[in-house]
Amino acid sequence: MKRLVNDGYDVVEEMLEGYVAANSSYVKLDEENPRVVVSKVISKEERVRIIVGGGSGHEPLFLGYVGADFADAAVVGNINTSPAPDACYRSVKAVDSGKGCLYLYGNYAGDVMNFDMGAEMAMEEDGIRVETVLVTDDVYSAKDKKNRRGVAGDVPVFKVAGSAAARGYDLDTVKTVTEKANNNTYSMGVALSSSTLPVTGKAIFEMADGEMEIGMGIHGEPGIERIKIESADKVIDEILTHILKDSKITSGDEVYVLVNGLGGLPVMDQYICYRRVHQILEEKGIIIHRSEVGNYATSMDMVGLSVTLVNLDEEIKELLDYPCDTPYYKIAKDSKFRFKK
Amino acid sequence: MKRLVNDGYDVVEEMLEGYVAANSSYVKLDEENPRVVVSKVISKEERVRIIVGGGSGHEPLFLGYVGADFADAAVVGNINTSPAPDACYRSVKAVDSGKGCLYLYGNYAGDVMNFDMGAEMAMEEDGIRVETVLVTDDVYSAKDKKNRRGVAGDVPVFKVAGSAAARGYDLDTVKTVTEKANNNTYSMGVALSSSTLPVTGKAIFEMADGEMEIGMGIHGEPGIERIKIESADKVIDEILTHILKDSKITSGDEVYVLVNGLGGLPVMDQYICYRRVHQILEEKGIIIHRSEVGNYATSMDMVGLSVTLVNLDEEIKELLDYPCDTPYYKIAKDSKFRFKK
Repeated sequence: MKRLVNDGYDVVEEMLEGYVAANSSYVKLDEENPRVVVSKVISKEERVRIIVGGGSGHEPLFLGYVGADFADAAVVGNINTSPAPDACYRSVKAVDSGKGCLYLYGNYAGDVMNFDMGAEMAMEEDGIRVETVLVTDDVYSAKDKKNRRGVAGDVPVFKVAGSAAARGYDLDTVKTVTEKANNNTYSMGVALSSSTLPVTGKAIFEMADGEMEIGMGIHGEPGIERIKIESADKVIDEILTHILKDSKITSGDEVYVLVNGLGGLPVMDQYICYRRVHQILEEKGIIIHRSEVGNYATSMDMVGLSVTLVNLDEEIKELLDYPCDTPYYKIAKDSKFRFKK
Repeated sequence: MKRLVNDGYDVVEEMLEGYVAANSSYVKLDEENPRVVVSKVISKEERVRIIVGGGSGHEPLFLGYVGADFADAAVVGNINTSPAPDACYRSVKAVDSGKGCLYLYGNYAGDVMNFDMGAEMAMEEDGIRVETVLVTDDVYSAKDKKNRRGVAGDVPVFKVAGSAAARGYDLDTVKTVTEKANNNTYSMGVALSSSTLPVTGKAIFEMADGEMEIGMGIHGEPGIERIKIESADKVIDEILTHILKDSKITSGDEVYVLVNGLGGLPVMDQYICYRRVHQILEEKGIIIHRSEVGNYATSMDMVGLSVTLVNLDEEIKELLDYPCDTPYYKIAKDSKFRFKK
């Protein structure tokens, strides 16, 4: 195992301890439930609070986006495991300001069950209204959009919600615009290796050297087929073909692009792949509003990447670009990316 | 090979093409020399210009720090290879505003030779004064500080230079404060694997599964010894013992900390390691001003990390925290990390 950990059973607690120590100006662990990461720079205004979460092993997702004007709290599960219901519930109590909360997470059965229990407890015990938007961006995971899994599309969808809350929208409006953002968000990935589980020291699944699987999910959910590793351009061509067909994004549409490294893929390769995404979109007359390339939603040491497109309208675009400040996502008021290119 | 590339000989050009496309609001390739990445948001003031560079394969170093109020240009070599002298020269012509330029790069023989030639050409051909500060932070690479290699300490040392130039200091003053920052910067790394060369499809050096080498350089330069992978805490204990002994950083001193992933190490492990760094520094009464954790200076897909400490005085601290805006380094004027913790 090529990991740097201590006891494999302690990785989440130790990671959290390190995370809040390194980012202590932004976040703290909740005093009552140490699986809830809470913003220390939360707005003093009464606002809808944004709560994100899911299993560990996808860092900087989810906790990296807790800060100012993005997520207000993250609920943390064990590796690839949904957070416990009491942590989901506690996150609401920790941040609610009287305007209700929005839960946001990728669509996985365990997460749905436990966050739903948290929302029920908040309503029953405290009368706090909690709504939910499931992120369902992985185009290859199901035919029906609402049954799809959430992958790196989490990041832009969360961002839209955080900005909507920061603008003072009420809970129904935050939910509506976030649902629209999710409906416009499409991702597909490729894996060249499995991630390694710290407890067993083993890969989650076997993948021979020189093999890859397009369409594979971030926990190893099956993709199209296991084939020899192809060139970056061929891989991106295939991914974009699926995304464009499914999304119906076409000439004249404007998009946000995220090329997301899964943890073990060099930045160099991410940009070689981005280059091809950019070429294809330009060839097709699709307008690129903004692009991000990097490790935003990982699967520990998995080698691979995903491509996400968000089909923009003016409202989503403004919310995606709204200023925020978290350890892993910063948009300054005078940020240079707003300059005309 | 678990890489996503096209022809191995094209990786640098394709990476650059993707990089400037994705970050086109910040940077462009120089029209005359496409191995020079130039800021599009360069200050309109006449200022000392900061030029960084070195071999490719360390992304986001060097080009990721070109933008506003940090580096003004980066000169790009092939993988693990210094940039050509004409590219070094051209970078000066591309950005000089009449106040001279400072070259900043890690201390490697090829880089020194080629950047020095670039500086001579700038003086002889154009009368532009170019000074140099070599970054020499790798404590294990040589006994004498001035003979040491530059590793992730590049990032804070570059930052100090960029801030000093942004404040309008003259070339001698920028150089002096940058030298001071370098003299106060100490790093040491550990590698659990080699990086993979795209042209050969092979590792640069062999390292068996389950092995590691503390003190190894980012191109595979030899470390202390090849041993079985130890726990994160033991690895950090050894690294910090070397750094603290060499730097003489002690109780009451104030430091900036960078835990830098080398490309293939999960964020989770980086924070588990940061946790131990934080514990040790707190135990010793060393004051942590600010910490950063992430992939800042990588070696493609190498699994490993380095720890960097910068011993701070008020001047270096202010310059490290000075606002800037680049694709991979952003400090907003109202950044939350400035809040009292």
